[in-house]
Amino acid sequence: MENKASRGEKTRQRILDAAEELFAEKDYSAARLEDVALAVGIKRASIVYYFAGKQELYEAVEQRIFSAMMAHTRRAERPDAPAMDQLLALLDGWLDFLVGRPTAARILLRISANSYSDSSAPVRNSFVALGAWEDIIRRGQASGEFPPASPAHLLHLLGAGTIYYTATGQLLGEERNYDPADSGQLEAFRNLMHRSARSLLSSP
Amino acid sequence: MENKASRGEKTRQRILDAAEELFAEKDYSAARLEDVALAVGIKRASIVYYFAGKQELYEAVEQRIFSAMMAHTRRAERPDAPAMDQLLALLDGWLDFLVGRPTAARILLRISANSYSDSSAPVRNSFVALGAWEDIIRRGQASGEFPPASPAHLLHLLGAGTIYYTATGQLLGEERNYDPADSGQLEAFRNLMHRSARSLLSSP
Repeated sequence: MENKASRGEKTRQRILDAAEELFAEKDYSAARLEDVALAVGIKRASIVYYFAGKQELYEAVEQRIFSAMMAHTRRAERPDAPAMDQLLALLDGWLDFLVGRPTAARILLRISANSYSDSSAPVRNSFVALGAWEDIIRRGQASGEFPPASPAHLLHLLGAGTIYYTATGQLLGEERNYDPADSGQLEAFRNLMHRSARSLLSSP
Repeated sequence: MENKASRGEKTRQRILDAAEELFAEKDYSAARLEDVALAVGIKRASIVYYFAGKQELYEAVEQRIFSAMMAHTRRAERPDAPAMDQLLALLDGWLDFLVGRPTAARILLRISANSYSDSSAPVRNSFVALGAWEDIIRRGQASGEFPPASPAHLLHLLGAGTIYYTATGQLLGEERNYDPADSGQLEAFRNLMHRSARSLLSSP
């Protein structure tokens, strides 16, 4: 028999699911707790029982996205492989994660547009992903496998592409729109991303 | 002596300048006409004399950004050059434009996160930039200089980088932040971007 605690946890997850949809679709200021409540089919007051307010709910959504993204990429980790294989595995992990969860891609775009002080939650959350990226680049550079280059610059040219590929496939206008989850599209994009990574990180 | 019409045009430009700062800094829903009025030092009612409402002001800001970006890149056009030179000139033009106008880079990120119906203003504005990009890719592919690849995919891996390089240099956390206008940073990033473009568009 289901107990009270697990019913509560289920409601909490349903609130987070609905909030993730909403924060992806609308900017933070336009998103309302009432809309989350409506989508879940509960009262606004019931949300406040789980999350003190919109900011707390937003932060929980964002933290859940980064946790899931890290868990997804951790499964693909290959610590003994050459740095290039590790880098491609990380990029593939991000790409596949975002394709499977397009709400996350749009929220990442919104995070990228907003400035936060260094101590705020969004920066702290994204640090985990940035750290995993930098670790691989730095180790590859230390061993001489990768040439010197700024990990941030490399991220702009490789990681940003995974976000744009996933988040904007339906925003380019009728004749240009594509389905990011279509396997032909996805493998063609992955192939280009790998080609760019190999060229940016091959020693000259 | 300055006449009434040119004074009016100056006020209109000052409103657009202040609005561009505001729409870059805050999401659309949080931006208020009152804040624009305060920044310009006029009354809210005076803004409404020039722009009927927030949506009209926002659209004028966005249109001005795309016009300026196109004017900037048009100066660098080299219609008789090989497609690769044209493509690099366009990317360089975008990069230099955004570095000189970081508000535009952040607004482009926000546009990318928001869905619009095909007939709405943002999609129509961005069509001009997308069209210039596609023209070069398609002509390069038609002549055999470029291999087949989706112009949209290529844009995600090259154009998105110029936006991220410019808009997020101060959002990566204290130890990672950089000044996108610093010439060492800018030339290092440009070099990587060119390397990626050459590798993505060289025939195998």
